[in-house]
Amino acid sequence: MDDKLLERRNRYLGAGSTLFYERPVTIVRGEGVHLYDEHGKRYVDMYNNVPSVGHCHPHVVDAVSKQVATLNVHSRYLHPGIVDYAARLTATLHDGIDSVVFTCSGTEANEVALMMARATTGGVGIVCTDEAYHGNSAEVRKLNRCRASTGAVRSIPYPDLYRYDGKGDALEYYLARLDAVIEGFARDGIPFAGMLACPIFANEGLPRVPEGFLAAAAERVHRAGGVFIADEVQAGFCRTGRWWGYEYADCVPDIVSMGKPLGAGIALAGAASSAAIVETFRRSTRYFNTFASSPVQAAAGNAVLDVVERDGVLDNVTRVGAFLRDRLGTLVGQHPSVGELRGCGLFIGVEWVRDRESKTPDRDGAIRVVNALKDRGYLTSNAGAYGNVLKLRPPLVFSQGDAEAFVGVFESTLADLM
Amino acid sequence: MDDKLLERRNRYLGAGSTLFYERPVTIVRGEGVHLYDEHGKRYVDMYNNVPSVGHCHPHVVDAVSKQVATLNVHSRYLHPGIVDYAARLTATLHDGIDSVVFTCSGTEANEVALMMARATTGGVGIVCTDEAYHGNSAEVRKLNRCRASTGAVRSIPYPDLYRYDGKGDALEYYLARLDAVIEGFARDGIPFAGMLACPIFANEGLPRVPEGFLAAAAERVHRAGGVFIADEVQAGFCRTGRWWGYEYADCVPDIVSMGKPLGAGIALAGAASSAAIVETFRRSTRYFNTFASSPVQAAAGNAVLDVVERDGVLDNVTRVGAFLRDRLGTLVGQHPSVGELRGCGLFIGVEWVRDRESKTPDRDGAIRVVNALKDRGYLTSNAGAYGNVLKLRPPLVFSQGDAEAFVGVFESTLADLM
Repeated sequence: MDDKLLERRNRYLGAGSTLFYERPVTIVRGEGVHLYDEHGKRYVDMYNNVPSVGHCHPHVVDAVSKQVATLNVHSRYLHPGIVDYAARLTATLHDGIDSVVFTCSGTEANEVALMMARATTGGVGIVCTDEAYHGNSAEVRKLNRCRASTGAVRSIPYPDLYRYDGKGDALEYYLARLDAVIEGFARDGIPFAGMLACPIFANEGLPRVPEGFLAAAAERVHRAGGVFIADEVQAGFCRTGRWWGYEYADCVPDIVSMGKPLGAGIALAGAASSAAIVETFRRSTRYFNTFASSPVQAAAGNAVLDVVERDGVLDNVTRVGAFLRDRLGTLVGQHPSVGELRGCGLFIGVEWVRDRESKTPDRDGAIRVVNALKDRGYLTSNAGAYGNVLKLRPPLVFSQGDAEAFVGVFESTLADLM
Repeated sequence: MDDKLLERRNRYLGAGSTLFYERPVTIVRGEGVHLYDEHGKRYVDMYNNVPSVGHCHPHVVDAVSKQVATLNVHSRYLHPGIVDYAARLTATLHDGIDSVVFTCSGTEANEVALMMARATTGGVGIVCTDEAYHGNSAEVRKLNRCRASTGAVRSIPYPDLYRYDGKGDALEYYLARLDAVIEGFARDGIPFAGMLACPIFANEGLPRVPEGFLAAAAERVHRAGGVFIADEVQAGFCRTGRWWGYEYADCVPDIVSMGKPLGAGIALAGAASSAAIVETFRRSTRYFNTFASSPVQAAAGNAVLDVVERDGVLDNVTRVGAFLRDRLGTLVGQHPSVGELRGCGLFIGVEWVRDRESKTPDRDGAIRVVNALKDRGYLTSNAGAYGNVLKLRPPLVFSQGDAEAFVGVFESTLADLM
């Protein structure tokens, strides 16, 4: 670890600017699924979803470099790039989602999504789940790890079959909680706007959820006059083996926010919806975003889509994801520290527990594994409501060979830690 | 105008996504102070502050292209680029501003600045001016064209000597309004956090202000336990002929938000403050921003600083700005439609009025000039509380020759419109 660099970083960015790992790594180069430190040590990236088609993909690098050299300006002049990109991007979404408002970050995408919901319904009340993370602005932060049962933003417990200890049917239990919040808004005279959720509850540790939960939740939201927003910043863009997390969750949102993987590192995010909702939003806010909808955002986004289409990335995610989950499942099936292995596509969560009976979350255990894997050249992280879920989320181009190699290292790491 | 492209844009981005000019232009290439449409027609850019060192500056293009090809990842690994950039950037600010939180947009920078102010004071009450624009998020929008005299965000009238019609001393009048808002917070039991203002009131049309206004305002804010935030998104980074707008306004802020010109088009913005305030903010929020503090932000920011230092950009702004303001001042000094020409550095506002006596704002007149200049190959816009201020804000590398050529065109445009 570069102690001098760390000291300078603390001074100029603040010590509270968190780094990964007990002994942070300096990363100076990326290529495909690999990252390299300042001494040339190679790490396999099993964490980052931003470099969706791999770090520094030549086609994306080329497209971005050419565009930066040609034109990089805001969207108050006509330019075909962002229009073409919006057309291609919305074509991957379900019918009825026709139009996009581009932003620079997932936070800004959720800001826009919330404004769309409120502008189109005339309501303000938003339901979220209680251990999610949706961004860093003042408004969006209200939805992070939200415990509120008063005010305009209120939460329901995130669905989790592994830890569900209620009596009776889990689906009914969670839906009843949603009903209660919607009724609470009505009782308190707060007009309802809708619900915002990550379709795979990524920050909550990718819990197994009662089948049909989100479809039923969206139906209840609609019945109460609200709209359903899918936060696809983590779930979307092929990650689950479907184009969008809401397809995996089998529900149909009214508004879709998206971000991280779209531009392979170029700041590109947005909120998509029906033309009518987007227009209502545009007219009510006159929204403008200096760096968004730029030709460079378009170049990056289009190049990423080129690679996804050309290289069969979605098929790769499905195939390698299934293989990896299968092999890891076999490996940890009886492991005393693993409560459950779950996930979809190339997004896997491994629930670390003190023992399988008590299910007591073992955050320290998960962190130990994360750091041990890092020392062995694999970059992962931990997530979840208890911080005890090992989070595996490699670039979408992670290969079967990469998966095989990881399984071997994971096995020996577990053995070493026992 | 490309009608088909416009139609597709309306469909995919929403018709409410505003374009400049009665007949919008398609722009496909930029170089230096020039933009080119799809037929190769050349426009002189007298509006954009984002391409601070000129469109597609080769040094910036090269630095960004190399970095995009090498590594483009988030800030939870150590990387020297963003630390070096933070050190260079803070060196341009006054002593005591040592540390930066990077973001992707000016909106996010103001979000962070507000959180810093509130975290460090424990207060919530914010004073702003009443015709400003500070960004597009829900929280920051509360400060846009704010008329509130209740709640946590309240406004004072922006200072404007041209339209000041109060009795007595203007400085005392505006400061008394600030005192009244601060007292109002105390009376209503809303703990005071501070004041946020653009040091040159750019969106308010670059008004002439009573001398010493912002220094006196900051002093009153401090006395009341608040902090003073300078929104330098438009005013900062050499625009005024000083490094930062607050130097031009002769005041010393506690927090500085910045954005547009920093990365020459790469989404780069941030909020800087003392190490203590940044650390209080970091610890209270655990703020993280996926695309910010990246090696690509650093490469862009460092390359722009290279050009600014190497090519004497600050001196160019001072010299060409003074020349341009002088020549234009002579030109419009007696013009019946021009109430006042004002500004600083390469940021000039021309107040359009129905006649010089009534001072009735003439928004239509300003818009007519903007469109006429566009037809003659000069891109400008209108701004101000009444939309009647012709806004001239070319890239910082605008040359004396560029300025001379513009003066000629401006003169003939005015003659044609009479």
